[in-house]
Amino acid sequence: MSLVVLSGGLDSTVCMALASRDAGPLVALSFDYGQRHRVELGAAAGVASWYRAEHLVVALDLTGWGGSALTDSSIDVPPPSSSGEIPVTYVPARNLIFLSVAMGVAEARGADAVYLGVNALDYSGYPDCRPEFVAAFQAAADLALKRGVEGHPVEVRTPLVAMGKADIVRLGLDLGAPLDLTWSCYRGGDSPCGTCDSCVLRAAAFAAADTPDPALPH
Amino acid sequence: MSLVVLSGGLDSTVCMALASRDAGPLVALSFDYGQRHRVELGAAAGVASWYRAEHLVVALDLTGWGGSALTDSSIDVPPPSSSGEIPVTYVPARNLIFLSVAMGVAEARGADAVYLGVNALDYSGYPDCRPEFVAAFQAAADLALKRGVEGHPVEVRTPLVAMGKADIVRLGLDLGAPLDLTWSCYRGGDSPCGTCDSCVLRAAAFAAADTPDPALPH
Repeated sequence: MSLVVLSGGLDSTVCMALASRDAGPLVALSFDYGQRHRVELGAAAGVASWYRAEHLVVALDLTGWGGSALTDSSIDVPPPSSSGEIPVTYVPARNLIFLSVAMGVAEARGADAVYLGVNALDYSGYPDCRPEFVAAFQAAADLALKRGVEGHPVEVRTPLVAMGKADIVRLGLDLGAPLDLTWSCYRGGDSPCGTCDSCVLRAAAFAAADTPDPALPH
Repeated sequence: MSLVVLSGGLDSTVCMALASRDAGPLVALSFDYGQRHRVELGAAAGVASWYRAEHLVVALDLTGWGGSALTDSSIDVPPPSSSGEIPVTYVPARNLIFLSVAMGVAEARGADAVYLGVNALDYSGYPDCRPEFVAAFQAAADLALKRGVEGHPVEVRTPLVAMGKADIVRLGLDLGAPLDLTWSCYRGGDSPCGTCDSCVLRAAAFAAADTPDPALPH
């Protein structure tokens, strides 16, 4: 059994497809953390349902802390930047927290692996998407978890970490992933804004993969 | 400014006293994770108030996962054991999760240190109380957090890690910590049960420190 951290976006949905092929059955884990794009939770539910996976939604309100455009409506979601700086959509310790909760759920449920759809090549400057972070996290978790101490650790798998977005789209199409059910936009409107970092990356990926985005009206 | 992970028990309250002396002002962070001894949250509020600290309570329901006597009322809290095995009161990934959230809050609030009252000498077999775990966690967090990447990491401090419980009691008394406000019992009754692991360790500590427990009626 495997656990997949499922946001409802493109990357985590392709992770679901890979985990379903290689390491099912699946438990999907989503976070309701006060993100302004909570609409992604509905997308996650749809993707989990498609894969007949149990879907757990953990509520963890990060909005009281401040400090991120994704959780603080007083900070505007900016247009894309290529400055190389950490963007304002960074949420302090987000993947550290998500992975930690995922490891706890995985151990409690008896899952052998945790899939996380991080993507280092075009990672938009988030430090907690880098492979060196994931490796260090694995080492820490192996010392914290009963399963690690007992010699059969829960493995963190990041199969997309070295892939570009266009290759992720192609892989998802090859695996028959329900990309039409996914949601990427950082803004929380009724339809994708088309201008935020996440929308721009997604559009470029489908363009490079030479295929229309099935989640857009056409 | 420092953040203290505050359960409302003896160890975390002595951490508050140390942090108040060395690295104030303080933010106290408690978790409402479905623990059957939720009464400790009231104790934490009292201790935070004593130190004039802001008190944040993060709700994160771990009860749906199962697997621990502390969150699953169908598993009995056992009498103390000295088998060296990980006890049933172990909660999967608890300190991993608590530290991760604490680092996120610390970064968002601008705190330079996170205090955690883990105690490795008489740690009852919890793997996530060991110094090797804390060191590995620090390494992972430094790679995940913006502050770590920017060269001024949030420091995890575990000042009690090499101390025995009696020395912790003595230190708390020396520092004038409000030990009368603390709560240790794993069972959630109106008064401490006196027989669980945590009660037995606490009673032995006050006995060894040759002082009555100010939280007990006398």
